[in-house]
Amino acid sequence: MRILLANSNTSPEVTAAVVAAARLSAAPGTEILGRNARFGARIVGTRTEAAIAAHGLVDLLAEESTGIDAVVIAMSFDSGLWAAREMLAVPVVGMTEAACLLACTMAPRFGLVVMGERGLAAYRQVVDSYGLEPRLAGLRALDASPQDLLGDPGIFHGQILEKVEMLVRRDGAEAVVLAGAAMAGLPKLLQERAPVPLVDGIAAGVALAESLVRLGFSKPRAGSLKGVPRRETIGLSPALSAYFGTDR
Amino acid sequence: MRILLANSNTSPEVTAAVVAAARLSAAPGTEILGRNARFGARIVGTRTEAAIAAHGLVDLLAEESTGIDAVVIAMSFDSGLWAAREMLAVPVVGMTEAACLLACTMAPRFGLVVMGERGLAAYRQVVDSYGLEPRLAGLRALDASPQDLLGDPGIFHGQILEKVEMLVRRDGAEAVVLAGAAMAGLPKLLQERAPVPLVDGIAAGVALAESLVRLGFSKPRAGSLKGVPRRETIGLSPALSAYFGTDR
Amino acid sequence: MRILLANSNTSPEVTAAVVAAARLSAAPGTEILGRNARFGARIVGTRTEAAIAAHGLVDLLAEESTGIDAVVIAMSFDSGLWAAREMLAVPVVGMTEAACLLACTMAPRFGLVVMGERGLAAYRQVVDSYGLEPRLAGLRALDASPQDLLGDPGIFHGQILEKVEMLVRRDGAEAVVLAGAAMAGLPKLLQERAPVPLVDGIAAGVALAESLVRLGFSKPRAGSLKGVPRRETIGLSPALSAYFGTDR
Amino acid sequence: MRILLANSNTSPEVTAAVVAAARLSAAPGTEILGRNARFGARIVGTRTEAAIAAHGLVDLLAEESTGIDAVVIAMSFDSGLWAAREMLAVPVVGMTEAACLLACTMAPRFGLVVMGERGLAAYRQVVDSYGLEPRLAGLRALDASPQDLLGDPGIFHGQILEKVEMLVRRDGAEAVVLAGAAMAGLPKLLQERAPVPLVDGIAAGVALAESLVRLGFSKPRAGSLKGVPRRETIGLSPALSAYFGTDR
Amino acid sequence: MRILLANSNTSPEVTAAVVAAARLSAAPGTEILGRNARFGARIVGTRTEAAIAAHGLVDLLAEESTGIDAVVIAMSFDSGLWAAREMLAVPVVGMTEAACLLACTMAPRFGLVVMGERGLAAYRQVVDSYGLEPRLAGLRALDASPQDLLGDPGIFHGQILEKVEMLVRRDGAEAVVLAGAAMAGLPKLLQERAPVPLVDGIAAGVALAESLVRLGFSKPRAGSLKGVPRRETIGLSPALSAYFGTDR
Amino acid sequence: MRILLANSNTSPEVTAAVVAAARLSAAPGTEILGRNARFGARIVGTRTEAAIAAHGLVDLLAEESTGIDAVVIAMSFDSGLWAAREMLAVPVVGMTEAACLLACTMAPRFGLVVMGERGLAAYRQVVDSYGLEPRLAGLRALDASPQDLLGDPGIFHGQILEKVEMLVRRDGAEAVVLAGAAMAGLPKLLQERAPVPLVDGIAAGVALAESLVRLGFSKPRAGSLKGVPRRETIGLSPALSAYFGTDR
Repeated sequence: MRILLANSNTSPEVTAAVVAAARLSAAPGTEILGRNARFGARIVGTRTEAAIAAHGLVDLLAEESTGIDAVVIAMSFDSGLWAAREMLAVPVVGMTEAACLLACTMAPRFGLVVMGERGLAAYRQVVDSYGLEPRLAGLRALDASPQDLLGDPGIFHGQILEKVEMLVRRDGAEAVVLAGAAMAGLPKLLQERAPVPLVDGIAAGVALAESLVRLGFSKPRAGSLKGVPRRETIGLSPALSAYFGTDR
Repeated sequence: MRILLANSNTSPEVTAAVVAAARLSAAPGTEILGRNARFGARIVGTRTEAAIAAHGLVDLLAEESTGIDAVVIAMSFDSGLWAAREMLAVPVVGMTEAACLLACTMAPRFGLVVMGERGLAAYRQVVDSYGLEPRLAGLRALDASPQDLLGDPGIFHGQILEKVEMLVRRDGAEAVVLAGAAMAGLPKLLQERAPVPLVDGIAAGVALAESLVRLGFSKPRAGSLKGVPRRETIGLSPALSAYFGTDR
Repeated sequence: MRILLANSNTSPEVTAAVVAAARLSAAPGTEILGRNARFGARIVGTRTEAAIAAHGLVDLLAEESTGIDAVVIAMSFDSGLWAAREMLAVPVVGMTEAACLLACTMAPRFGLVVMGERGLAAYRQVVDSYGLEPRLAGLRALDASPQDLLGDPGIFHGQILEKVEMLVRRDGAEAVVLAGAAMAGLPKLLQERAPVPLVDGIAAGVALAESLVRLGFSKPRAGSLKGVPRRETIGLSPALSAYFGTDR
Repeated sequence: MRILLANSNTSPEVTAAVVAAARLSAAPGTEILGRNARFGARIVGTRTEAAIAAHGLVDLLAEESTGIDAVVIAMSFDSGLWAAREMLAVPVVGMTEAACLLACTMAPRFGLVVMGERGLAAYRQVVDSYGLEPRLAGLRALDASPQDLLGDPGIFHGQILEKVEMLVRRDGAEAVVLAGAAMAGLPKLLQERAPVPLVDGIAAGVALAESLVRLGFSKPRAGSLKGVPRRETIGLSPALSAYFGTDR
Repeated sequence: MRILLANSNTSPEVTAAVVAAARLSAAPGTEILGRNARFGARIVGTRTEAAIAAHGLVDLLAEESTGIDAVVIAMSFDSGLWAAREMLAVPVVGMTEAACLLACTMAPRFGLVVMGERGLAAYRQVVDSYGLEPRLAGLRALDASPQDLLGDPGIFHGQILEKVEMLVRRDGAEAVVLAGAAMAGLPKLLQERAPVPLVDGIAAGVALAESLVRLGFSKPRAGSLKGVPRRETIGLSPALSAYFGTDR
Repeated sequence: MRILLANSNTSPEVTAAVVAAARLSAAPGTEILGRNARFGARIVGTRTEAAIAAHGLVDLLAEESTGIDAVVIAMSFDSGLWAAREMLAVPVVGMTEAACLLACTMAPRFGLVVMGERGLAAYRQVVDSYGLEPRLAGLRALDASPQDLLGDPGIFHGQILEKVEMLVRRDGAEAVVLAGAAMAGLPKLLQERAPVPLVDGIAAGVALAESLVRLGFSKPRAGSLKGVPRRETIGLSPALSAYFGTDR
């Protein structure tokens, strides 16, 4: 089974990091591929960059999804998730979506640790968009950017665990998602020292993608996710343009 | 006051139509400008196109927002709304957001008439994203595309009014949003024949934008919408690239 | 356009204050009128007074709504809002309703600063009644009454800004409503010193009322807000009695 | 124990009817008194009348609550409920509130039969105001006014039972509230012929009032319902005026 | 009227305590009986014990419900509540359900004091299961087990009142449920010293049970609570086995 | 990896059926075991049976969970789910929980087909208990019992597909869960003929269990799911009794 980590962060280091993390948790026989979007922010951290990333994602998928069995969006705002589901016939999972859904199987309510104050409202909207507000205990922000974490993650272990403790002791979380592609791999590393399960979006995304592939669902033929009919567009990449030029 | 109708539908006919509708309802002294995104679908109707449109919007705003007092997103999925709010120091309103908020001032619960079955789930997610699910009575789909409506709207008046009646009589709506840029102007035309207020996203957007400008709010200096710091990006248009290259 | 500030606070000083604030933000050509209810509390601050104010409002409207294009309820519990909407053929907006809806166009979640601990639960019910609980970040109470604020507002600027900061930093608000007629004008005055938009119910109410008038919606002919048929009543004022004695 | 049915419907026939119904279900030793508001609609059926009724209720309570152990609001929009709770030191229960709460002890989700289409949205707001939307299966409207029902209820038995069946079979209700003072007594009469429990607001209100009295709760000394301090008012009845002139 | 306190805590001391508390608040003429489940935890405090208790309850009811007019579940997770409602033709009320519903008649939002940190999430799920999340201000945990409280409750009065104060001052509760069978009787004892009503699940349960009996509802003949048809089972007690062996 | 299908339906035929279905979808290397509860209904279909099943489940787990890597509850009300999570150090997934969570990765809103009218309210409560009400489009009931389906499923294919169509066309579902252990295997069989993904609780449960095992989360050491301390019980099986007699 070939799973594509579609990374609308455009920095290859992030892609390398998520691919490495994914391979650690993937099932035997799962092949992990990573691809960056052709344009957009190196590391998406603002709403404006997230808006661009939605296009970056579908542009990437038009190009790279041939021969792929499932896609995991490796940018933690999950931008373009429903578009990708409409676009492709194979399963698509958002990394934060996957983390939150798995957290639901382990905790009545879960929390999120995010990178930077700016992320508090943005991730809350992401969780709300999945209708999971009733399961959300709270969010806590690290005083660190993804760049900081990619640079020297070890420095931040203490701070992350402190936020986890606050989510557990004050907010009532019984599982915690470490949100962000730059956190990939950290949950596993820190699990031992945390009082509740720590969830990794990349690992969760790969696991759910594997599940969906194995279960063999069909592409919807009705509703908002059925194949896109031929549509008139301008200014898109050849591959994306071709996508809209074909009936499905 | 200069209000930009930022249209991530790329077809100039739609822009012409929304500009015309906006001018009919704008306050005296309000100047209405319309601009299309440089790339994307002619008329956005699928989730994939909506994902592209979010980028189309911020790309357009990087280029065209100088000297503008407020922006109305003239594409009815409001894609890129929060990004645009983060990006700009002037007010930004989504056309469907505006319509739903104004509907709330007239009705305990409101409904939406959308174009095509595909829109039922997509618009529900838009309304949900505003937290307005408690005010939503229902959605009903026309058996017509935006293209059909732009072609010869008169043919569809009867069908639209029928859907309005169903929303009122069966679903309990006490105001109805006619959703979609291609519906701009129709609410005014059909109001007389409808039992409850019909809301036009473009007119509502312009009205709210005028309100926000007149009230003179400041750009946030905290939270998820404060100005974007200098960020590293690739593959973006010069204007958008420059936007990320400047500290705010 | 003539907008009536219908004040079910019975103190003319409050009416003078809200009229002054309204005129500062109204569009050119908007004429602002202020009228007090004939009975009730000088400044409504308890639930009992709010209950009386609902009658005070409809009594006032029966008398004073001729020749008016829209009504803003200038008492911040918005008591009698839906009654006024049913009663009149012109738009009616509650000052707190308007503030909350405009806050939604600027912030994922907003907060309220209220006057006195007593208001915390009462205003929460007001916000909940609009279905806006998903957008509410929190409420914080000033240790000051409306009377205090009307007396010497300058004394309280520091305290108000402190509550705004708490709503932003601790509760996650990205816009803040300063709730209460006695706060009218203060948001504009303090905006510079606040990290997020401060919303004024009176200014917001006038702006939305102007919008609704300009958009020209029809009075509902179905549902819970259509005109009231002839009804038998006792003990009401001649004007209100006459209202119920006429078919609509 | 003396329970006051405070009826902001001003028609003595309705009061007589609810008093009779209350006596049938009251516990031995419970004395039922009925009083009408001094002003307002004969039978409240519109939002405007409901707004007046809130004042009618507190006016009545200022006059008549001496020596009373609890109050049931015998007007089914429960207008003025929280005001009455703030005002008095004894328990206050709304008839529709009580019916809905008791329905919750018998059914996962309940429905309401209301009198007239107009009531559908209005009662939904009442139920929502109690936060009980998750327990509400639906509402169905009789084609009959309270006046019709008071005139010759027998004619409507069939229609009521039909609406009950629809709530059960189509909407998933497992208990049904027959809403409205004019329905008092009917649930008992029709229970045999209905597939699920039928709840009577008056009977439910008396039962909950008895419960609250017997359990002996204290008047709140904190929050939004503690005693009202001396307040300045104009134009109120001597009794209500005196209420505000006393510290509590 | 005979009300059975069905206690799926298996310790007779708890049953004695709840029976004593129930008798203090029951109406004249109400006979209170207490019965323990035949198996399960002495005092249910974990989720595993609560799961067993659901069976313990229906097993007990199969044996002991003859001649009973209503049942109050005297174990505060209310385990087996809907099962018991399906099983019996007489009213069944959960002690925590009853407390929360009565709290709703006295406070816009209420809080819970629970015994032990473990209970915070578990009781939140109980309250959520009644759809009462919109009415829940918060939960606070005593640092004490039910065993501690049964041993020497006096020691904990101060701590309980402190948690009540926190629920009122910080969380906005205007009534507080003291949750747990081991708390029965304490609300009455501490009411004087608390700023808001304190609600006792046992007293509330008996009161609601009395109400439901007096109102005389019928057993549902449709939906999920109608009588259970003959069913094939294994390994159950003779009484419970017989219950499933009979058509209803 | 060894996954236990813990079946609180006591009929070995159901266990055989779910084991067979599980094996079809399990990953290579996953060993599927099936065990029945020692007591309870042959096929759980009522709330009373579901209450017993919660005990049946934890009784079974006390006996059979040694050497197991994860547990899937193979009874579709998922009774005892949180108890099992508290009890064990390995992952536990409910079959309906798993189906609903996977449906969330494929559809904005999903529906359920249940067996018998009785299930409509009961399954709605199950979905609500996961906080997934915002994602639930509706439920539709087959006119068939699990026994019927186990007997000759082929007869019901048409009826099932018809309910699926109604969920899609009328209720807006974009994925459908076929709820019930007796439906195991049917989604795969019928997928081709359905317009949207059909989700199988057993297959979904196994997939999520595999994911959770592979991701290697730790047992919570805080909150409501941490290990149960030594507890005093009566009347339980030796294995379950021993469970409570050990500190964890």
